[in-house]
Amino acid sequence: MNRLTVNALRAIEEEMHRLRRYQTVPLFYDPIDYMLDLGGKKIRPLLLWLSCGMCGASPERALPAAAAVELLHDFSLVHDDIMDNDATRRGKPTIHVKWDVNTAILSGDGLLGFAFQKLLETDCDDTAELARVFTRAMIIICEGQGLDKQFEEQEEVTPAAYLDMIRRKTATLIEVSCELGGMIAGADDATLEQLRRFGLNLGMAFQMQDDMLDITADEAALGKKVGSDFEMHKRTILYLMLRERLDKAVFDALDLAGYRRALNEAGILAAVQKQTEDYFDAAWRALEHFPASPYKSAVGEMLSSLQKRRY
Amino acid sequence: MNRLTVNALRAIEEEMHRLRRYQTVPLFYDPIDYMLDLGGKKIRPLLLWLSCGMCGASPERALPAAAAVELLHDFSLVHDDIMDNDATRRGKPTIHVKWDVNTAILSGDGLLGFAFQKLLETDCDDTAELARVFTRAMIIICEGQGLDKQFEEQEEVTPAAYLDMIRRKTATLIEVSCELGGMIAGADDATLEQLRRFGLNLGMAFQMQDDMLDITADEAALGKKVGSDFEMHKRTILYLMLRERLDKAVFDALDLAGYRRALNEAGILAAVQKQTEDYFDAAWRALEHFPASPYKSAVGEMLSSLQKRRY
Repeated sequence: MNRLTVNALRAIEEEMHRLRRYQTVPLFYDPIDYMLDLGGKKIRPLLLWLSCGMCGASPERALPAAAAVELLHDFSLVHDDIMDNDATRRGKPTIHVKWDVNTAILSGDGLLGFAFQKLLETDCDDTAELARVFTRAMIIICEGQGLDKQFEEQEEVTPAAYLDMIRRKTATLIEVSCELGGMIAGADDATLEQLRRFGLNLGMAFQMQDDMLDITADEAALGKKVGSDFEMHKRTILYLMLRERLDKAVFDALDLAGYRRALNEAGILAAVQKQTEDYFDAAWRALEHFPASPYKSAVGEMLSSLQKRRY
Repeated sequence: MNRLTVNALRAIEEEMHRLRRYQTVPLFYDPIDYMLDLGGKKIRPLLLWLSCGMCGASPERALPAAAAVELLHDFSLVHDDIMDNDATRRGKPTIHVKWDVNTAILSGDGLLGFAFQKLLETDCDDTAELARVFTRAMIIICEGQGLDKQFEEQEEVTPAAYLDMIRRKTATLIEVSCELGGMIAGADDATLEQLRRFGLNLGMAFQMQDDMLDITADEAALGKKVGSDFEMHKRTILYLMLRERLDKAVFDALDLAGYRRALNEAGILAAVQKQTEDYFDAAWRALEHFPASPYKSAVGEMLSSLQKRRY
């Protein structure tokens, strides 16, 4: 990670902690602070900050908005962890486990409130339009989570429906982070379109990787058991593509080794690997639109290191 | 209710149903539509709409913002009902009862998203500033809910702390509804101050009434059992004032009849009644600031009918 990115990360962390609080309420603020201190890769705020720089403006202007997209991401994690019954997040107990469900609902709401607070602090020609794009993303993320929950109740989910769901649940916020960075810089419509294309394709690639790493990752590096998605019958792109190919009885009888073998034999791992590379290629092509700058180099470095990740 | 108010109510209902949806997701949208169809008094959007008119602008401009404050209120009801374990709302099953907790979390989030969507549709000189005031209110409401939950764990809660809590949890949104109506009309700072004062005092009076009606209401008209707050040990201003006066053992031994007798003997019902009237008086005084108009008359009618309510 180069110095530009390291400095941006530090500035984003600090900005996220600068929340205007109106009253001392430990039950509300302690879990919010806990979440802020959990860390995380900060991909979305970094992309927002760097996108603003790539479009020729000082990325400092984008700092509140960068904090905002990470706070929005945190909100969705806190509420999704309740709904998905996940006990750990970034290696620590989730809020509904460490406190309780009510506290997690309320502090998730708070994180969303602070996301809007930060976004609206952004100094830009049309802050209301920023907020509209941000709000649209938030609603689409909720729709994505709704689709994900619906799929749990459905016998059949097509790979196409799954791709649409992850586009909403995962890729939209990455897409919109890049777009907001450009909007703050005053970029023109064609440039914004390239930023969205970059973010959307990166977001899709990122989720495809996640799905594959459950089967292909090095267990120590992944930080969770390899095959845990499969063991929990989590619908991933691999799962759904294989489910389409096999009889239900055959599919249901597979153990992890058999699942892995069947994915290979059906060419599904290779196909998904290819699809992921196509998404990455599309992201690289969108990036070509931008003139050389330290910000563009930093984005290229991020893209490269995400493309190479093995966990 | 006069014709102006009836027409405003209809327009608000319609506006609340005009949501820009991006995808068909029944699990997400069915409970949102259910909540929108539950009705409710619509005090906040009516006050916003009428406040805009009282300040000399066409209240039609305020319609999206009016829908927004009711959507924000609905969001807080859906999440609070989970936290408070309330099984009915407006005479119907709450969302977490009719569906489940996860669905209620997600649809509450959605209502909040649509609240921002509507607010940001408002055509006004500084829509971003509207959104800042709205966001601040949303965070303060969460703080109020946090205080309320904290109080459940505390042995001692002073009446002053309780008043601060309800100011945040209940009165803030009424205050801000009036303020937003004025902002949309382009009202000056002194006028906005009177609108806030009006709304805040009305909001406090409204909650004091709620607390008293649990003891003094006509059961059929109230729509729930008289004394149910007391039976559930819900801290109300009456409860907390009496708790301050009596030994814990004496207080804990009270049945409903004894509780009511003690409230009368200690002069607490009369004191709270007086306090409520003081809040209403302050609201009436703030209203005097505005020139005569059909909108002001309609606000006066609302205030009057709220002041007289017996359920």
